[in-house]
Amino acid sequence: MGISADDVIVPLDVPGAARDEYIGNYLMITRESGRLMLFAGDQKVEHMNDDFYGEGIHMDDSSPEHLFRIASKAKIGVFATQLGLIARYGMDYPEVPYLVKLNSKTNLVKTAQADPLSRAWYDVDQVVKFRDNSGLEILAVGYTIYLGSEYEAEMLYQAAQIIHKAHQHGLITVLWIYPRGKAVVDEKDPHLIAGATGVAACLGSDFVKVNYPRKEGYDSPEIFKEAVLSAGRTKVVCAGGASDDVEAFLRRLHDQIHVSGAWGNATGRNIHQKPLSDAVRMCNAIYAITVEDASVAEALKIYHSR
Amino acid sequence: MGISADDVIVPLDVPGAARDEYIGNYLMITRESGRLMLFAGDQKVEHMNDDFYGEGIHMDDSSPEHLFRIASKAKIGVFATQLGLIARYGMDYPEVPYLVKLNSKTNLVKTAQADPLSRAWYDVDQVVKFRDNSGLEILAVGYTIYLGSEYEAEMLYQAAQIIHKAHQHGLITVLWIYPRGKAVVDEKDPHLIAGATGVAACLGSDFVKVNYPRKEGYDSPEIFKEAVLSAGRTKVVCAGGASDDVEAFLRRLHDQIHVSGAWGNATGRNIHQKPLSDAVRMCNAIYAITVEDASVAEALKIYHSR
Amino acid sequence: MGISADDVIVPLDVPGAARDEYIGNYLMITRESGRLMLFAGDQKVEHMNDDFYGEGIHMDDSSPEHLFRIASKAKIGVFATQLGLIARYGMDYPEVPYLVKLNSKTNLVKTAQADPLSRAWYDVDQVVKFRDNSGLEILAVGYTIYLGSEYEAEMLYQAAQIIHKAHQHGLITVLWIYPRGKAVVDEKDPHLIAGATGVAACLGSDFVKVNYPRKEGYDSPEIFKEAVLSAGRTKVVCAGGASDDVEAFLRRLHDQIHVSGAWGNATGRNIHQKPLSDAVRMCNAIYAITVEDASVAEALKIYHSR
Amino acid sequence: MGISADDVIVPLDVPGAARDEYIGNYLMITRESGRLMLFAGDQKVEHMNDDFYGEGIHMDDSSPEHLFRIASKAKIGVFATQLGLIARYGMDYPEVPYLVKLNSKTNLVKTAQADPLSRAWYDVDQVVKFRDNSGLEILAVGYTIYLGSEYEAEMLYQAAQIIHKAHQHGLITVLWIYPRGKAVVDEKDPHLIAGATGVAACLGSDFVKVNYPRKEGYDSPEIFKEAVLSAGRTKVVCAGGASDDVEAFLRRLHDQIHVSGAWGNATGRNIHQKPLSDAVRMCNAIYAITVEDASVAEALKIYHSR
Amino acid sequence: MGISADDVIVPLDVPGAARDEYIGNYLMITRESGRLMLFAGDQKVEHMNDDFYGEGIHMDDSSPEHLFRIASKAKIGVFATQLGLIARYGMDYPEVPYLVKLNSKTNLVKTAQADPLSRAWYDVDQVVKFRDNSGLEILAVGYTIYLGSEYEAEMLYQAAQIIHKAHQHGLITVLWIYPRGKAVVDEKDPHLIAGATGVAACLGSDFVKVNYPRKEGYDSPEIFKEAVLSAGRTKVVCAGGASDDVEAFLRRLHDQIHVSGAWGNATGRNIHQKPLSDAVRMCNAIYAITVEDASVAEALKIYHSR
Repeated sequence: MGISADDVIVPLDVPGAARDEYIGNYLMITRESGRLMLFAGDQKVEHMNDDFYGEGIHMDDSSPEHLFRIASKAKIGVFATQLGLIARYGMDYPEVPYLVKLNSKTNLVKTAQADPLSRAWYDVDQVVKFRDNSGLEILAVGYTIYLGSEYEAEMLYQAAQIIHKAHQHGLITVLWIYPRGKAVVDEKDPHLIAGATGVAACLGSDFVKVNYPRKEGYDSPEIFKEAVLSAGRTKVVCAGGASDDVEAFLRRLHDQIHVSGAWGNATGRNIHQKPLSDAVRMCNAIYAITVEDASVAEALKIYHSR
Repeated sequence: MGISADDVIVPLDVPGAARDEYIGNYLMITRESGRLMLFAGDQKVEHMNDDFYGEGIHMDDSSPEHLFRIASKAKIGVFATQLGLIARYGMDYPEVPYLVKLNSKTNLVKTAQADPLSRAWYDVDQVVKFRDNSGLEILAVGYTIYLGSEYEAEMLYQAAQIIHKAHQHGLITVLWIYPRGKAVVDEKDPHLIAGATGVAACLGSDFVKVNYPRKEGYDSPEIFKEAVLSAGRTKVVCAGGASDDVEAFLRRLHDQIHVSGAWGNATGRNIHQKPLSDAVRMCNAIYAITVEDASVAEALKIYHSR
Repeated sequence: MGISADDVIVPLDVPGAARDEYIGNYLMITRESGRLMLFAGDQKVEHMNDDFYGEGIHMDDSSPEHLFRIASKAKIGVFATQLGLIARYGMDYPEVPYLVKLNSKTNLVKTAQADPLSRAWYDVDQVVKFRDNSGLEILAVGYTIYLGSEYEAEMLYQAAQIIHKAHQHGLITVLWIYPRGKAVVDEKDPHLIAGATGVAACLGSDFVKVNYPRKEGYDSPEIFKEAVLSAGRTKVVCAGGASDDVEAFLRRLHDQIHVSGAWGNATGRNIHQKPLSDAVRMCNAIYAITVEDASVAEALKIYHSR
Repeated sequence: MGISADDVIVPLDVPGAARDEYIGNYLMITRESGRLMLFAGDQKVEHMNDDFYGEGIHMDDSSPEHLFRIASKAKIGVFATQLGLIARYGMDYPEVPYLVKLNSKTNLVKTAQADPLSRAWYDVDQVVKFRDNSGLEILAVGYTIYLGSEYEAEMLYQAAQIIHKAHQHGLITVLWIYPRGKAVVDEKDPHLIAGATGVAACLGSDFVKVNYPRKEGYDSPEIFKEAVLSAGRTKVVCAGGASDDVEAFLRRLHDQIHVSGAWGNATGRNIHQKPLSDAVRMCNAIYAITVEDASVAEALKIYHSR
Repeated sequence: MGISADDVIVPLDVPGAARDEYIGNYLMITRESGRLMLFAGDQKVEHMNDDFYGEGIHMDDSSPEHLFRIASKAKIGVFATQLGLIARYGMDYPEVPYLVKLNSKTNLVKTAQADPLSRAWYDVDQVVKFRDNSGLEILAVGYTIYLGSEYEAEMLYQAAQIIHKAHQHGLITVLWIYPRGKAVVDEKDPHLIAGATGVAACLGSDFVKVNYPRKEGYDSPEIFKEAVLSAGRTKVVCAGGASDDVEAFLRRLHDQIHVSGAWGNATGRNIHQKPLSDAVRMCNAIYAITVEDASVAEALKIYHSR
């Protein structure tokens, strides 16, 4: 595998003047593989401190700097987190490729009380100005949509605008789409998830991150194909989910890519809840499968190497 | 039949500088027939993956590119879909005439839970800029209003603004109007649908797409006349509805035009759920009736030709 | 009677540069009588097709062009309708004096379900630009407020802004004020209607259209005086209401003007539900009383003339 | 008593260029006494026609011009009413000092149905432009906040903005603050009213109008002191309340100023519900106590003089 | 201890041109100690007059000027209050270092009735302009977020914008974060408070003020460490809370700094409810521990000195 500038299909909302920027960002974020290894570090808002402190979580993870240490020492495609953290640590981690996660909400209000609403904290122009002033490698922006929420209309609008404006500046876009709300019965239903990736396609996003589908009596790698097809030229990447056995995790990732046709992964807790050195090797193992086309055995070997 | 530039009644919110653009778009979208054959491809959001994958739907339809393949190979007036998809596929289908559907919502939240709200994803200026940058044949914009929803005021405002601004730039407008919400008892009531087309007239839209009325004990082609009259100079086109027997479909369309006085159709599922070659011939059959004044028999012959 | 430029009290939110425009519009809309004969044609949204099609309504009324035909053939002060219709028919009826009704809502959602909200479709600047581009005689703008609705604050704000901006451009303003909402027990209460006209005065409107008060055991022309007084220099005109016997209608109008002190009328259904020629004579009869100071008998004679 | 320019503490949000304007307005509105006699004429919206027509109200009050006649013939500090009325009558009453009341709501929706929300009708820039175009003596702007309403956040924001922008242009500000909403048990509680005047101080208003506190077993003039203290340099004036015996009214006012330390009054119904000549003498009596430091006996004498 | 310009980590959303301003403000607000002694004076809105008048509160506190007297006579890092008060007293207290608290709400509506919403009263540009016009030492801005409120999305957005824009101008930022709303069971839970400080880090604030955690059977100084870690480079300061025994207060503060690792305190009631001279010595005692690294005994000695 391996792609070059000619292989990048530049969407038409990228104006001529931003094409080279877009192509460069696309090649860099996929490490010229066409696939995305996204290290997700936005959970300090989304899950508050639940993912960073407590039983089964290494103390390294109690400070946000842990995320930056991993991102700078490991092989990744991009590190996704909020702009505030990037502004506070970026000067010491200038080599990290960043994705600015534009919206976040806490998990305090549950769906039973109110449907989820997550609103953008910044507009794209502010991110672009921040990129230019800081000199950081900001390659992309991200946004979460809760389809099926009563506030869906506002999030669809914000997502459309963010993608459109990000493309004006050559930035890559990643949508996190989760069906959620009183109207959603089964968030993991494969047909529903295929609906979500189709929405991402209609919004024109470069990548969409969804949960891995699960259906009683069905094989997940097989039923996930519907979502990959439905997304068309928008590339589907899979959420890493809750912390997991390493081998099972890597095998699932390999299946997602080689059976379902997914284009990468977005992993957070399975990386950062480990001590720094384990976390770095976990990244490298995930990266090997995603970007370097390694087998599960090769990736496991990387994880267990010292 | 057949119309020329002199037959086009240019609305007065089209400024002098945009008259020629408007007339050109009007002639192109109606293929100089005055009638509109709209190929509707906005359901990946509106119905999520329900219309594209599953029993009775050909696997060709599982990827959004199917829609573009049809639009480029078949005879159509315009292909309506979201801007994100157009941006992602337009470079490979530059000859297709496009309508940008400006708002969309999923079908997850049902009316029993909350009245429908669909908000514009872009403003018209963004579409115009996209048209100019991409060089695509973007002839029109579309917007859905749910009359009778508790959010009606917001959608009426957005529709009015979109039409007004589209006309500033010579773009043609199509409204999708569906009475829907807790206050609406019978969405197919002919008097209610005539109310809807009257609203489209007051908003100054060029075309309005409504559902075909149905009333126990009445003949649909007859009772549909009220809506065509009520719309005045705004032209009424009819939604294709759920997948149907081809002959019944074509006969109904012929009646809508020649009995009721409708000015075309907007068809999606009856086209794209078929394999590519059938879908193309189905388009051509619909086009024959709508634009080329064919009889039902002639159209059927087109559909069955290989 | 009869007024000239010197009799027009120009409100102080009309800037110096727009004074002549305002005075000209005021004289034209009142036909130099100081009184307003407003032909109301905004019901295609407000009442959908209920006022235009059905038992007791002439088929002429089934198409919106009927309204323009009446407005162009009859004597009126101004024809009030939505901008979309004006844009579509104005080129064939350029001599008609127009009022652009800026907001409208359908009657689908009833007060028992939700309090009424009607939002402006355009801002005044768009109307002014449309006036200048189209060359039409747009003399005025109109807006409806539902006092007592839970959304009252938004409508009061929009009304204040519309009047203020209309006056900046020399346009005349007409408010439609209806107390309506769960909090309103009796919409026709004379004291409540006098409250409504007082609100119009505080908003600085030139004219306010209210419903004719009705109170068990009281004489409507007498109890209506309170509203005329409360309005101060804002002139009160009366809604025509549902279709009615012609003589009763004209007598009531005469009383409103000569007993209560009202300054005109706003009539829709009593005109346009008739066939064209009757509708024109009905207009002329109303005009005779309102503008030409005719007696009821004289007006009736006009109506019955052929 | 009597103050000069040197005694005016100009708040720091008044820029240098507007200091003289502010000082001039401050001296004029307090008639160089430091105290404010505000003639309140905004009730045609707030209470609709209840305060202007009916038993116990003189017929003079049935027309809004009555307010202007009083304001022009009597001694007052400032006449507060809506901009629409000022625009319509100001040309005939150019000598009156005006305060533009920026927000108003009707009393139709009761607190039991929904918490109160009153939104600004204009922004300060529009008032400033109106002042400059009209040449009227517009000295101040006013705004009502309902503390304890579920919509409090919006009104606090609007109030803060209005005060900030008014001071940019040298205008004086008066807040009307009423605790009201489902959360408010006793609107007249002295501690709550002292909270309200403290909020006015934090918002930086020049004056705040509150209701006179009342507490079983306590002396109102004494318990009102808490509110005057809490307001700091923001000056407290007292609402006149419902129509009242003249002597009791004047005695209460004298106590508010000389016992409680209040800086004036805001009186409406106790003035305008009287016939013109009584209303003028009532104003003059109130003015005598507020601005001219008269005793109750002297003020009563003024009221009873012919 | 003691820091110099080289020790200040300037966040990357501070542009080059504002770096010196930021560093200067940072050094001044921490008095070159890196720690913050914030004198909180925003309660006149947040708690209305409850904190300023009544049993156990000295009469000095009944007027807002008391706050300014303390701030000017005592050693503090910064005095936080609303812009309106600063505008009204700042000319007499020009040497005080100020923080403009940008949002405030009253305590009238309880959480059981509606979740809390506090909206910004001004934008940062207005504060900057005010700083420049007034010449006051405005070093910082502050904003309160209620995490877990149904209105959380709006407050997160406003906070993100305020921090981003404040940094554009070199201003220091302090967030007040309180988990509150129907979804929040225990506002003092240490894990929840650590979640809150993590959110502040993601928003990029310089400082975050939280309540001191409390958990049955745990030692507060120990369990508070989680929050300090979670905040990363955002510095945690602790709310002073309700009025308290002086020695207990100072001991707790010393523990927060030297056991938990907090970077200062934000104290209001424990200072201003005392008579002026006690309040000044209380400030000085708090300052000694926070900024001058004093022991509890040394600080107590300061408080008891005359």
